[in-house]
Amino acid sequence: MSHLIFNQPSEDKSALEDAGDFTPRFDDRGLITAIVTDAGDGELLMVAHMNAQALALTIQTGTAHYFSRSRGKIWKKGETSGNLQTVKEIRTDCDQDAIWLKVEVAGHDATCHTGRRSCFYRTVTLREGKPMLDIIDDERHFDPQDIYGK
Amino acid sequence: MSHLIFNQPSEDKSALEDAGDFTPRFDDRGLITAIVTDAGDGELLMVAHMNAQALALTIQTGTAHYFSRSRGKIWKKGETSGNLQTVKEIRTDCDQDAIWLKVEVAGHDATCHTGRRSCFYRTVTLREGKPMLDIIDDERHFDPQDIYGK
Repeated sequence: MSHLIFNQPSEDKSALEDAGDFTPRFDDRGLITAIVTDAGDGELLMVAHMNAQALALTIQTGTAHYFSRSRGKIWKKGETSGNLQTVKEIRTDCDQDAIWLKVEVAGHDATCHTGRRSCFYRTVTLREGKPMLDIIDDERHFDPQDIYGK
Repeated sequence: MSHLIFNQPSEDKSALEDAGDFTPRFDDRGLITAIVTDAGDGELLMVAHMNAQALALTIQTGTAHYFSRSRGKIWKKGETSGNLQTVKEIRTDCDQDAIWLKVEVAGHDATCHTGRRSCFYRTVTLREGKPMLDIIDDERHFDPQDIYGK
């Protein structure tokens, strides 16, 4: 399968904001931000990054692929854990520098590597002038030790 | 009001993923990604960036502030349009490099500068092998010409 080629973004702001060609605006690192929600109930599951290849693979295969900044490579989400993401809808924002994936999660229905459903399992609140984190979801859908061996 | 000071992130991954101090991980540009949803129905409204000052202002005032990469300055969302965002909840993700704001939008209940409720008003679909955009929400809550004069 040959990879999709994305056309260059228009310099005309109104063209960027209209219907027509999808011309993603990758940043100076060649990345675009991807926001991932559950297609069923809309819960925010994770935020990740894609390069052009990961975005093309996601659009062409219907399974979410990302670019790992720490590992410097394409990453098919759920390849190890089984928690693959089937993409039900893709949207982009007004200036085409972010995309939103609505997905169905397979496997344990867990997106976070800690075994939780969502990576956003903690709230931030100010206590005695300090920003503090509280865990509001501690249900583990899998044991990371079993899956990742670490 | 003195600005909040954020402690440096731990190098211990398990500490980063636990409860305790909120230690946001700003990238090499000094920015963190902010995902913004409607506190009422969970709709994804926008994605933006914050530097430490914008994040501190948001936590301390309860009104969303961002950092505009194009203008190179702090930006109180809605200052011109009246569509201020009151923050009802803040969450962070497992590695503390993204935050999620659940907000109530004042004014026209519009977050996008095009006058639409959400910046994510277009879907991406593959048609004849090309990634194309379709507008699925074209309801304008305000006329950008009236608000921004452009």
